[in-house]
Amino acid sequence: MKVIFVTGNEGKFREAESELAEAGIELEQRKLPVPEIQADTLEEVVHHSVEWTRRQIDGPFFLEDAGFFVDALKGFPGVYSAYAHKTVGLKGMVKLMEGKEDRAAGFQAVIGYWDGSQLHIFKGQCRGRMTDSLIGEGGFGYDPLFIPDGHEKTFAQMDPEEKNTISHRGMALHKMLEHLKG
Amino acid sequence: MKVIFVTGNEGKFREAESELAEAGIELEQRKLPVPEIQADTLEEVVHHSVEWTRRQIDGPFFLEDAGFFVDALKGFPGVYSAYAHKTVGLKGMVKLMEGKEDRAAGFQAVIGYWDGSQLHIFKGQCRGRMTDSLIGEGGFGYDPLFIPDGHEKTFAQMDPEEKNTISHRGMALHKMLEHLKG
Repeated sequence: MKVIFVTGNEGKFREAESELAEAGIELEQRKLPVPEIQADTLEEVVHHSVEWTRRQIDGPFFLEDAGFFVDALKGFPGVYSAYAHKTVGLKGMVKLMEGKEDRAAGFQAVIGYWDGSQLHIFKGQCRGRMTDSLIGEGGFGYDPLFIPDGHEKTFAQMDPEEKNTISHRGMALHKMLEHLKG
Repeated sequence: MKVIFVTGNEGKFREAESELAEAGIELEQRKLPVPEIQADTLEEVVHHSVEWTRRQIDGPFFLEDAGFFVDALKGFPGVYSAYAHKTVGLKGMVKLMEGKEDRAAGFQAVIGYWDGSQLHIFKGQCRGRMTDSLIGEGGFGYDPLFIPDGHEKTFAQMDPEEKNTISHRGMALHKMLEHLKG
């Protein structure tokens, strides 16, 4: 079986490629200028992106979107995590959380898989809490601000293997894999 | 001449209606679930929205998008002003600006006008500076945080007439009106 992964991100592609290879699924990368709409949830964004993409591609494909959701900020930066990262930045996030007792937050990843006739949504989530300063040198994005539940280190302090076993992205990918196998 | 204004906002519609009536242009309100894409500029958002809308409507129409852009925050909240307002909020904006010497900011409004065969973009801008706390009871959105250049009051301290003469929205509307008259 062959599936197209619509992404411009090489790192995401390679991660998915190795995850799906073990199930005998061949992955092909396709870069397309997929429009992402403004919405409150990743599910809505992905739904719309699949609707656009399925007019460009024949056969099965999937795409993915992810974000960091902070409870005390009503979900901000959420769907706009990449934009907030390059404008407000991590130091801005620290400022926004000053004095907030509720530190709960989570990463979410949503995959939209189009099997050729139907849309399937697979969601991965990793809950945890926000630090009050940047900790750790690894990872990317909001990793230095996030300690997953059941752990004492931030994502930025973990090596990639450790992070991948608990990450939102790995979980969404795993759910899709189970579906493809079944 | 009759033009359709695609908006769900009654206030915006009435403002445009009275502005265009003096030039003998009749306005009709149309509510549509126009998708707004994620982008760095209002022009991109409006361009995409017009592309979608022109497949739904025959004849001339326009739509509008607006935002608040803070220089020291690399343009944040910008295109996502409404979302940031309901999540981060005005107090969050005050926190983000703590210790920032550069207080420059501006409101932008962009109108996309489809004349039946071509897109025209009209942009209005109102530059000014950010306060370090909320001032004034009137207006809406980011008005209590913004003092326009050449003034000493925030938008939230001005009565609607005073604000409209210098506002980004009024300016974009005026540019479109000049085009329609010409």
